[in-house]
Amino acid sequence: MTVHFADAAASFPVVAPSRLDSFVAAHSFDKPTLVMDLDLVSRQYRALKAGLGRADIHYAVKANPAPQIIARLVDLGSHFDAASRAEIALCLEQGAEPRDVSFGNTIKRASDIAWAFNQGIRLFAADSEEELEKIAVHAPGVSVYIRLIVEVSQADWPLSRKFGCDRDMALQLLDTAKTLGLNPVGFSFHVGSQTRRAEMWAPNLDVMGGIWQAAQDAGHDLSLINIGGGFPAFYGEEIDAPKAYAAKVIDMVEARFPGVAKIMAEPGRGMVAEAGVIVAEVMLVSRKSERDMHRWVYLDIGRFSGLAETEGEAIRYQFETARDGDAMGPCIVAGPSCDSADVLYEKRPMQLPMTLRAGDRVLIRNTGAYTSTYSSVCFNGFPPLAVVVI
Amino acid sequence: MTVHFADAAASFPVVAPSRLDSFVAAHSFDKPTLVMDLDLVSRQYRALKAGLGRADIHYAVKANPAPQIIARLVDLGSHFDAASRAEIALCLEQGAEPRDVSFGNTIKRASDIAWAFNQGIRLFAADSEEELEKIAVHAPGVSVYIRLIVEVSQADWPLSRKFGCDRDMALQLLDTAKTLGLNPVGFSFHVGSQTRRAEMWAPNLDVMGGIWQAAQDAGHDLSLINIGGGFPAFYGEEIDAPKAYAAKVIDMVEARFPGVAKIMAEPGRGMVAEAGVIVAEVMLVSRKSERDMHRWVYLDIGRFSGLAETEGEAIRYQFETARDGDAMGPCIVAGPSCDSADVLYEKRPMQLPMTLRAGDRVLIRNTGAYTSTYSSVCFNGFPPLAVVVI
Repeated sequence: MTVHFADAAASFPVVAPSRLDSFVAAHSFDKPTLVMDLDLVSRQYRALKAGLGRADIHYAVKANPAPQIIARLVDLGSHFDAASRAEIALCLEQGAEPRDVSFGNTIKRASDIAWAFNQGIRLFAADSEEELEKIAVHAPGVSVYIRLIVEVSQADWPLSRKFGCDRDMALQLLDTAKTLGLNPVGFSFHVGSQTRRAEMWAPNLDVMGGIWQAAQDAGHDLSLINIGGGFPAFYGEEIDAPKAYAAKVIDMVEARFPGVAKIMAEPGRGMVAEAGVIVAEVMLVSRKSERDMHRWVYLDIGRFSGLAETEGEAIRYQFETARDGDAMGPCIVAGPSCDSADVLYEKRPMQLPMTLRAGDRVLIRNTGAYTSTYSSVCFNGFPPLAVVVI
Repeated sequence: MTVHFADAAASFPVVAPSRLDSFVAAHSFDKPTLVMDLDLVSRQYRALKAGLGRADIHYAVKANPAPQIIARLVDLGSHFDAASRAEIALCLEQGAEPRDVSFGNTIKRASDIAWAFNQGIRLFAADSEEELEKIAVHAPGVSVYIRLIVEVSQADWPLSRKFGCDRDMALQLLDTAKTLGLNPVGFSFHVGSQTRRAEMWAPNLDVMGGIWQAAQDAGHDLSLINIGGGFPAFYGEEIDAPKAYAAKVIDMVEARFPGVAKIMAEPGRGMVAEAGVIVAEVMLVSRKSERDMHRWVYLDIGRFSGLAETEGEAIRYQFETARDGDAMGPCIVAGPSCDSADVLYEKRPMQLPMTLRAGDRVLIRNTGAYTSTYSSVCFNGFPPLAVVVI
């Protein structure tokens, strides 16, 4: 695999995913298409599980809810973290047991809580009193974990304050949950998506360990620490291999939560991103002026048709073309729509072959997470990202 | 209509859209739903047409491609600006004549150019040599207009350099088009979406007038000036009424392009935004800490399910609830998904009723443009924005 980013460390030992490459090479695609390799999902699940040890993996379904992926993960013994009623329904349809599915969104419609309860879901997230009240009414007696804000992120895609509450409120919500007849079992947090190195977890875990201890001291007999996601994918900058990464994280967890009964982890991106490649096409290569240093490369896929995570140029995908042996030059990369916000990489241009032209195929590597369902319904009349699972 | 933004001038005479309000009041919705009033579309078309006079309106289909809207606009005599093959197909299906549909995307798939040509489309946009070459091969002899970059925007949603080329290149492309056997008829530009006052067009038109003259001086007998979109909708800040706005713009155009044979305008937002209201629901109201000044209000709709234009807090929609008579307080507003980027208004919080709670209905006004098709396919398991046309 060729890495084109000027600053890419590229020292992560990427093995060419030959089954994926063979499939892609053997087929033509008349629109942008995500090809997912189930065997790579299996390999990644096993690697993460080997590192995570006794922790339960709850796959974050939102990363890629292709039914075949869910079914494969059910077969492998994975549990699931669902963001919505539809994701819960999907998991159950694909054979997951209700006891293995958590409703991890802290913002739930009351009727969806009731529906989930009726389906047998017994573990819910919350970060506020009003949410606990909704859960108590519509899913009486279930287990809840309280999500905390941890503000020491070093992630590439750091999280806002949207989810979680502060320490004092979290401790208070444990009491509220009890008063409401719920079973407060523990805490969750999120280190931030795409946390590239295991050691970046340490400050977050330190903070969480302190809050955990405070809860114990206040008389709460907690049993669950949900460490959320953050498991990285390779986008050109060095990351730890999945097994080693997961093992390091769990070692740090065990040290800070001695004897905790149950550990949950919610990899999403880290499970499926590297199992997918998007096959795209160059629509146009142009300059705006004879004096322009950069070319503009327009693809048939953009921010509104699958590459939403290029917002703010946060996630830098790796591109691969058949002309990568030719001389390279800097390009601004944009999507095909009549929308000026549909620009992928402009502040930090990409190096692409000088010979690139309309009609050329572009492979966008490691795009198995947060692409297919982020795609718009019909933006500018363009169809949603197609998905093929092999 | 109540306007809640602290800085809202709100002096634009908004007439309560009673047919829309009656429909919304009489129905319940179990998911976020955009309700579009065709009569308001008609009213707006007539107002814009009255102001634009001899200019042809090419409705920018991407703003809202609901088939009923296209059919209504066909009946009213509108022409259409299409961004893709699918949008062209939609217009033709709804009764538009091929001669009244322009293919305005400067980034087109070669096979789509050929398809459009076979459907009878004869007017294409371009801003680069490679695009002209594609058009010459797949749609020989058609009329083309060259899009320019105009960098003096005062719009609320200014455009990037994604579309258009500079003056020298534009003049050169007229020659290139001729050499390729195409018919270069004129220029297009875009002042930027949501250009609130007609006088903001003047600097752009001055620049374009100069380029137009240079082309004439170089021997090009141009017949078309396409002034693009930019026609505003009311989002809380004062705008000119549509007829007066359009008339002022056309007066400025006539003064700078004396005797031009054909003027095209491409309103999208300005045609349909005010004809729609989204019915949403509060999922949760919470604080992150006892000390927080702001509440967080989570809706069942967010950036990935229809409100994409809240990116960077650019477009500030107006919210309306049944509790608007109660005391107000500042709120951060976010969508329902497990995605930290799904926050609508945080830097500039909104004033919402202190009594607001989960289950309350929220009307989001003037959301008829750039909402329905921007909605994601199934982000986090949430369904796309539903659309009802009345």
